Amino acid sequence: MAEQIAFLGLGNMGVAMATNLLRAGHSLSVYNRTTSKADSLKALGATVAATPAEAAQDASIVFTMVTDDAALDTITTGPDGLLSGLAPGAVHVSCSTVAPDTNRRLAAAHQQRGSVLVAMPVFGKPDAAEASKLWLATAGPTGAKEKLHPFLDPLGQGVYDFGEDPGAANLVKLCGNFMLGAAIEAMAEAYTLAQKSGLERQQVHEFFSNTLFNCPVYKNYGQLIASQHYQPVGAEPRIIRKDLKLVLHEAQEQIVPMPFATIIFDQLSATVARGRDNIDWAGFAQLAADNAGLGQQG
Amino acid sequence: MAEQIAFLGLGNMGVAMATNLLRAGHSLSVYNRTTSKADSLKALGATVAATPAEAAQDASIVFTMVTDDAALDTITTGPDGLLSGLAPGAVHVSCSTVAPDTNRRLAAAHQQRGSVLVAMPVFGKPDAAEASKLWLATAGPTGAKEKLHPFLDPLGQGVYDFGEDPGAANLVKLCGNFMLGAAIEAMAEAYTLAQKSGLERQQVHEFFSNTLFNCPVYKNYGQLIASQHYQPVGAEPRIIRKDLKLVLHEAQEQIVPMPFATIIFDQLSATVARGRDNIDWAGFAQLAADNAGLGQQG
Amino acid sequence: MAEQIAFLGLGNMGVAMATNLLRAGHSLSVYNRTTSKADSLKALGATVAATPAEAAQDASIVFTMVTDDAALDTITTGPDGLLSGLAPGAVHVSCSTVAPDTNRRLAAAHQQRGSVLVAMPVFGKPDAAEASKLWLATAGPTGAKEKLHPFLDPLGQGVYDFGEDPGAANLVKLCGNFMLGAAIEAMAEAYTLAQKSGLERQQVHEFFSNTLFNCPVYKNYGQLIASQHYQPVGAEPRIIRKDLKLVLHEAQEQIVPMPFATIIFDQLSATVARGRDNIDWAGFAQLAADNAGLGQQG
Amino acid sequence: MAEQIAFLGLGNMGVAMATNLLRAGHSLSVYNRTTSKADSLKALGATVAATPAEAAQDASIVFTMVTDDAALDTITTGPDGLLSGLAPGAVHVSCSTVAPDTNRRLAAAHQQRGSVLVAMPVFGKPDAAEASKLWLATAGPTGAKEKLHPFLDPLGQGVYDFGEDPGAANLVKLCGNFMLGAAIEAMAEAYTLAQKSGLERQQVHEFFSNTLFNCPVYKNYGQLIASQHYQPVGAEPRIIRKDLKLVLHEAQEQIVPMPFATIIFDQLSATVARGRDNIDWAGFAQLAADNAGLGQQG
Repeated sequence: MAEQIAFLGLGNMGVAMATNLLRAGHSLSVYNRTTSKADSLKALGATVAATPAEAAQDASIVFTMVTDDAALDTITTGPDGLLSGLAPGAVHVSCSTVAPDTNRRLAAAHQQRGSVLVAMPVFGKPDAAEASKLWLATAGPTGAKEKLHPFLDPLGQGVYDFGEDPGAANLVKLCGNFMLGAAIEAMAEAYTLAQKSGLERQQVHEFFSNTLFNCPVYKNYGQLIASQHYQPVGAEPRIIRKDLKLVLHEAQEQIVPMPFATIIFDQLSATVARGRDNIDWAGFAQLAADNAGLGQQG
Repeated sequence: MAEQIAFLGLGNMGVAMATNLLRAGHSLSVYNRTTSKADSLKALGATVAATPAEAAQDASIVFTMVTDDAALDTITTGPDGLLSGLAPGAVHVSCSTVAPDTNRRLAAAHQQRGSVLVAMPVFGKPDAAEASKLWLATAGPTGAKEKLHPFLDPLGQGVYDFGEDPGAANLVKLCGNFMLGAAIEAMAEAYTLAQKSGLERQQVHEFFSNTLFNCPVYKNYGQLIASQHYQPVGAEPRIIRKDLKLVLHEAQEQIVPMPFATIIFDQLSATVARGRDNIDWAGFAQLAADNAGLGQQG
Repeated sequence: MAEQIAFLGLGNMGVAMATNLLRAGHSLSVYNRTTSKADSLKALGATVAATPAEAAQDASIVFTMVTDDAALDTITTGPDGLLSGLAPGAVHVSCSTVAPDTNRRLAAAHQQRGSVLVAMPVFGKPDAAEASKLWLATAGPTGAKEKLHPFLDPLGQGVYDFGEDPGAANLVKLCGNFMLGAAIEAMAEAYTLAQKSGLERQQVHEFFSNTLFNCPVYKNYGQLIASQHYQPVGAEPRIIRKDLKLVLHEAQEQIVPMPFATIIFDQLSATVARGRDNIDWAGFAQLAADNAGLGQQG
Repeated sequence: MAEQIAFLGLGNMGVAMATNLLRAGHSLSVYNRTTSKADSLKALGATVAATPAEAAQDASIVFTMVTDDAALDTITTGPDGLLSGLAPGAVHVSCSTVAPDTNRRLAAAHQQRGSVLVAMPVFGKPDAAEASKLWLATAGPTGAKEKLHPFLDPLGQGVYDFGEDPGAANLVKLCGNFMLGAAIEAMAEAYTLAQKSGLERQQVHEFFSNTLFNCPVYKNYGQLIASQHYQPVGAEPRIIRKDLKLVLHEAQEQIVPMPFATIIFDQLSATVARGRDNIDWAGFAQLAADNAGLGQQG
């Protein structure tokens, strides 16, 4: 008989992941602040809970996928938070992009109550989540991770483990978003130089993403940058600006100068300050064109 | 019967390319300032010429692969340069990483004498050249490029064309070296932050180069950065510093602010100024570690 | 008859300021965590208190001058903090370099108890404090500032007011430390370029600090940079790194990209990470010379 | 009896300097490509020459003050250039902001003909030139500089000498323009942060330019930045962008990473690329406000 699983936080990513768990035959209770987001899951057989605690109470594994550190704190340790409902020995799988210290702190809170936290940030856009093609990074107690493993197939195409420190996987997640930002800025500068030198952005993009930089990151983000059309919106600039802020916070704490990271953060800040939302975060690439005197295309 | 080809400039890249042309059955005359570099080619049947003009005189296609703009100028328009020996209608295939304007200027010189220049910078390290796995970018008159095509199979795994402006392909080459530099700096910062946060550089590298950044550039350069061991030397820091200088020159002329490019150039400059040679140019990544208080690994 | 004044926090700056208040004839009770720092003031007639609350209890005006936000919190709202001893209507003059929000928060705590906070960060090194030559910036309720004014002559050469928001003066203080850092980096780069071009650092420094940049900041910091001898220590790199961190925090909150501020912070971080303490914070200028391949002067 | 002096190049700076020489009683022949610029000087008694050579032929001292390196080359060594008219032993005082190597090269050309070049870049805006308040920096052969000295009183308020290398004074001039740019960017960032934090730009400017940064550079440029009104135009952005390009060129040649200089250059480039002319070059400060989402003030 299938174990009971809970899934809390039903944004684009959460819904896609929960759907795949349901389709894999798992029994699921779900929770979201805005209940309507749970409708499609209910139709697939999920139980909709009124509070995080209620969703968690019979579950041996509880996934959370929320917007930021504050939301994760609330859903975990707030009134009717999952922590108050969780059975001893149950595992909280914390998937959100948060500060390493947030998961470390929550892991300690779990330990006091006999439950366990495993950090498992995920890499990929909503379409990758739908296709079970996320990359998963785990960190936390070994026993809990082993318990978790049988449930990961419906979510991702691979799991990489980063040891027992529950902050480690999130540090890797932050590095990943930084490295994506660096690839975006690099393409933004290169394609702008190429355009002003008389070349087609698109042609240069096709060359690089089929040769030296033949990987999905360059292909997908590069297409947005080449076309200067930053749709659909995977994540808005203000969302990833928050992630880069976490990167810079870690860099400050660890005393690591990161000149590229500060430039990406500044570009995202300028994008947000200029009121550019409703575009994918890769739209900060437009500043390279602006600063070269090129307007947005068509 | 095979047409006569000439190959001028026999560094690591040139020797590998010329060898592959010979092995493909082409008749080759070669030239290098230091004659000993031609020995292995002579053993394979190449004719060794005493001057560029002599090497070029019976050739319908002349490849050049030299260090920099000055060397290309000398071998082309200097005394006994290839231009003075070249037959009308012959094609000069200019493969070196030089300023776009250098190839534009030489193309005009060719035109006055009835010969033609095709710019064809190549992407890849010496081992890719040996394996006929270079990526080739061409620019120049259409007729000449068609004439050239049958000879490219032994050299590369693919050809991309950038039109008639003989400067265009070199602009793309410069963008490529810039984008490589950006990937290197991004990994340098990320791996350093990870290390100071208690993770293994190697483990983080394996994760990224097998997932989001699953392409040779991140795999190969990333391995040097993860191990902090910048060997073997593909190109020394001073060589690629020259290329980034050309990037910044184009950016100045076209009025394109490129903050990432200036940081890479500054890191390469600091590497050269601190006397760090005999390492691959990716060794500028070490500055990120230095500035975080991490010494070089044993 | 003189009103009772208290002075809490007796580092180099605090002792100099308290001494000048005593010499001006004011009656002073003082407190410092390490009591020995109060010896010279006791000899001049100050009463040494055992706790902040004791020092504050009969005072109408209480100055604090401590290292950072945490120390200010402790001395104000901690056990036996000044807030618990302060009479209604008394004024807390908060002189430390802290985040604007810290003073805003403490001002609200005062208001609940009937006392008042005036922020008054000071500009100048210890020698300026000794000479009553500080520049004073005030922010807070008008009435309290008027009450304070008669006591400022022994401290500074001028007072500038920034309104009622108790965070405003600290924001100006942070801007000031940032602008000092910018002047230092500018001189560091310029003198290094001049030196490598064959000029004497000292001669270039004398020219600029006597002509275009004829003001104490350029004269004094410039002398350290020209001589590459960063003594005496006004404030260590880690101290001002903390201030720049506050600058960047404000810039993040207000969404203001500050490329110069991030460079200064990164240089200070690299200085701290490389273990360079026991030098004045202007010693981050040495990195410009290092990165140009110039060692430190004999 | 007064010696014959020539003044070539009658822009705002040149006219002001030539006028002061005339008023001091010197006999002056003048030249400008656009002759009408000489009208006011003719009215004061100057002889207007048709070519540089004609202006120079009876002069013992010839000042040049032109826009850039190319203009200086033309007026000196071009057809009917001053070099062809100059008497042996005469002194060419080269005042323009040009590359150090340009003056070195021209100095060598003079030496071959028996005349001498002294580099004497000047520091100050047109109003300082009118008021005889420029700062003068000299470099070149000692004897020639001694011959020049009696004529400098009408021009400036002080002379600093940088030795015999004719490139040295221009290097100092370039450092000066860089340091001005750094002060401008520092104020731009600080005033923008202050504004978004609820302070008045003007009030913050008055504080700093009367206390820590009490010197004309901060007062004058700071006023433009505080008011966000970049008039009158001392020099357009494209003019000083050219100077920063020379700074970066020197930094490249000497291998000196200059992160501040690259940022200033990039800001000037973005200003030019966005088509912002008819403002003083300090108007690049507006980008800090733009990037923080603040529009230009009414």
